[in-house]
Amino acid sequence: MRAAMTDLTPKPEFILVEPQMGENIGAAARAMWNFGFERMRLVDPRDGWPNPRAGALASGAGRVLDAAAVFATTEEATADLHYVYATTARSREMTKTVFTPEAAAADIIRRHALGEKIGILYGRERTGLENEDVLRAHAIITVPVNPEFPSLNLAQCVLLLAYELRRQIDDTPPEVYQTGKSTLADVGQVDRMLSHLIEELEEAEFFFPPEKKGSMQLNLRNLFRRAPLTDQDVRTLHGLIRALTGKRQNPRKE
Amino acid sequence: MRAAMTDLTPKPEFILVEPQMGENIGAAARAMWNFGFERMRLVDPRDGWPNPRAGALASGAGRVLDAAAVFATTEEATADLHYVYATTARSREMTKTVFTPEAAAADIIRRHALGEKIGILYGRERTGLENEDVLRAHAIITVPVNPEFPSLNLAQCVLLLAYELRRQIDDTPPEVYQTGKSTLADVGQVDRMLSHLIEELEEAEFFFPPEKKGSMQLNLRNLFRRAPLTDQDVRTLHGLIRALTGKRQNPRKE
Repeated sequence: MRAAMTDLTPKPEFILVEPQMGENIGAAARAMWNFGFERMRLVDPRDGWPNPRAGALASGAGRVLDAAAVFATTEEATADLHYVYATTARSREMTKTVFTPEAAAADIIRRHALGEKIGILYGRERTGLENEDVLRAHAIITVPVNPEFPSLNLAQCVLLLAYELRRQIDDTPPEVYQTGKSTLADVGQVDRMLSHLIEELEEAEFFFPPEKKGSMQLNLRNLFRRAPLTDQDVRTLHGLIRALTGKRQNPRKE
Repeated sequence: MRAAMTDLTPKPEFILVEPQMGENIGAAARAMWNFGFERMRLVDPRDGWPNPRAGALASGAGRVLDAAAVFATTEEATADLHYVYATTARSREMTKTVFTPEAAAADIIRRHALGEKIGILYGRERTGLENEDVLRAHAIITVPVNPEFPSLNLAQCVLLLAYELRRQIDDTPPEVYQTGKSTLADVGQVDRMLSHLIEELEEAEFFFPPEKKGSMQLNLRNLFRRAPLTDQDVRTLHGLIRALTGKRQNPRKE
């Protein structure tokens, strides 16, 4: 995660409504902190607060639990917020916008930039949010899961939202070419290696019959164009050719 | 999840290398099946196979476990594949492409369309993949997590890849306006309600002082432009105005 932790990073409140198992509160804290989010609110946790079972599971994410704010009702837990999302798997007979996690994260980032304070409601493990809780939200978030198996648990649902938010603000390059201490070889380096190879193959009368020589060389050159080679790879290939031709004692200049 | 389960949907093999806890195999199966992926391979699972602890945790995703193929080595588990990704948190001294989950999913979808068979390697719970396993892969996938807390477990890492793959092929609309049995009101319906409201407010001498009447009406009209209203909402507001003015017995035409 290379995301600049600037003011562009939203700081939504992850609000767990009447969570039942301490372990799930701990797992939700881990999921948040994995992607750098740390604001948790708890509404009337079943087993009281603090809960040692939550702490045991949270391990390095204990700071999220330590700072968690506890409220008696969803009403109180959302009173200071400007925009609230309710995560729910079921459709409700309520006129509301329903977002995918991806679209919700984009909306949260946009609202954060406008200065809004954001909350995301998560329901009880077994039964989810009550209609009364959903009513307090401005919009709904539904994860598009396999209709044959819609079984995301609390911490997984928290993880996916945290992941989406981070993905959209993170500046990790989508694809890097990791080369360790080497650098990519340029076309000239690869060409010199190919000339070395073809010279030795000519000498070994590899290109037979003569009328196929052209296409055989073409295919061979093309083969080494397909894989990105480092300067170390090219040196290794030169050495390999020398070894196979028994000319190790007479190293050629590269 | 509304994704068309067409041939465009990739069918990567999720390959768990020497998984230790049956519970984690079960949880990984759930994570896959949550997003509609079902091809699992196991390399030398510590406690043998089948493992009842995996089945207990997988519940509705048992079909993934039932169809899982078991191999003695990573070599055998990848022999029939065309392109293999290794998930790893640590950087290795190996020349390889490193993808984010997002870029990896795009690459998998692209390769699937080209007819390639794909595998994703996941390492042991505690220690991850050996260098030998990473070596067998063509590219690396690293989830950009919080550097202060990089603690994704096996099933979470499987979940994020499965989520990313599904997100990129799914056709769930990012945002829908759920209205239940109602439909959105058009501008004319809202305007007639506003005229009704302003007429009654005029009668009640609400617009005072007279020189502010224009801006007060403007703000009031604008307020009702901000919220999307359904036809049912407009009917409710007409009724509300009548009720507040004591004219319930004399319903006006809408």
